[in-house]
Amino acid sequence: MIKPLEDLVDALSRLPTIGKKSAWRLALHLLERPREELDHLSGCISSLKSSITLCKRCFNYSTAEVCETCLSPARDSSLLCVVEKPMDVFAFEKSGAYRGLYHVLGGVLSPLNGVTADKLRIAQLKDRLSRENIRELILGLGSSAEAETTCVYLARLFSHGPYRVTRLARGVPAGIELEYVDQITLDNALHERTDISYK
Amino acid sequence: MIKPLEDLVDALSRLPTIGKKSAWRLALHLLERPREELDHLSGCISSLKSSITLCKRCFNYSTAEVCETCLSPARDSSLLCVVEKPMDVFAFEKSGAYRGLYHVLGGVLSPLNGVTADKLRIAQLKDRLSRENIRELILGLGSSAEAETTCVYLARLFSHGPYRVTRLARGVPAGIELEYVDQITLDNALHERTDISYK
Repeated sequence: MIKPLEDLVDALSRLPTIGKKSAWRLALHLLERPREELDHLSGCISSLKSSITLCKRCFNYSTAEVCETCLSPARDSSLLCVVEKPMDVFAFEKSGAYRGLYHVLGGVLSPLNGVTADKLRIAQLKDRLSRENIRELILGLGSSAEAETTCVYLARLFSHGPYRVTRLARGVPAGIELEYVDQITLDNALHERTDISYK
Repeated sequence: MIKPLEDLVDALSRLPTIGKKSAWRLALHLLERPREELDHLSGCISSLKSSITLCKRCFNYSTAEVCETCLSPARDSSLLCVVEKPMDVFAFEKSGAYRGLYHVLGGVLSPLNGVTADKLRIAQLKDRLSRENIRELILGLGSSAEAETTCVYLARLFSHGPYRVTRLARGVPAGIELEYVDQITLDNALHERTDISYK
């Protein structure tokens, strides 16, 4: 009926988690906003790809050839954390618990979907481990079946190097009643239990 | 950390129903899409306001001075349906059940929020009713307290004209178990019950 509006609804509803109804609501909302706000949003979108590239060292998103994290003297460059995707780097950074460097794999092994070892940035990781002075390689992967497989694969591949290879602890997540914790999680938490005696 | 990405996240999270986390997910998704797709989306947004205006007859969104619906010879111009906002016109059009014209009020009466009768397009409605050949004025408003008040207000204001004034039926919505229907709805449905005998 109203072509420019329908074009926008179409474009918006192609985004993840945005259905036709949400797209209509967003489009009608945008129509009510001042022109400067629309220009700002459209500018942010169109300039996104031209201003952001992949850091050639850690493969996280960056505005420079090598990202700020990799260049920062405040980071411990002997700690290297392997993650699946850039979103995971943001998760670690938000927690503030990690002060080392990252290596973004670009996925996890999933041979059925065509993601074999050569599709991930494993050769680049090998290269970094041989050239950089790494003390500990942290496998910061998720707990899906594919992520677990990738974790075991990497642990085997890099277990003979002059560095410690660790993985994230598996156990009970924060703020949850034990009755709602699933069996596998509980099993892991029990197996990897830690000492707590105050002698 | 990455300015262009954070700018986009900020702009996206200012939209309704999009929180910080969804904004991040959308922004990172956009970063993975081809440049043409981003340019298309940003073009849709920036050209929105310049190509869409309000129809000077019904006040719905339009790309021309008078909208397609108002000009269409296929519509029954003796039927006029009053709605709160453009979104409501889309809802009626999607149902396909209505073939008359519309009048978008631009809100409902809400004196506590400063929306008095002179803030709505009631004078313009009066004008249309005096100049156009209207047979029936349908009050197509919602069922919030403010919408009900507006409905009664308009019904009183226009009850002396040479046209029928009607409102949407109030009753049980489609596809619902009666035990989940609230008391007011059930009360309305009972009061406005209709004959169904097959003699």
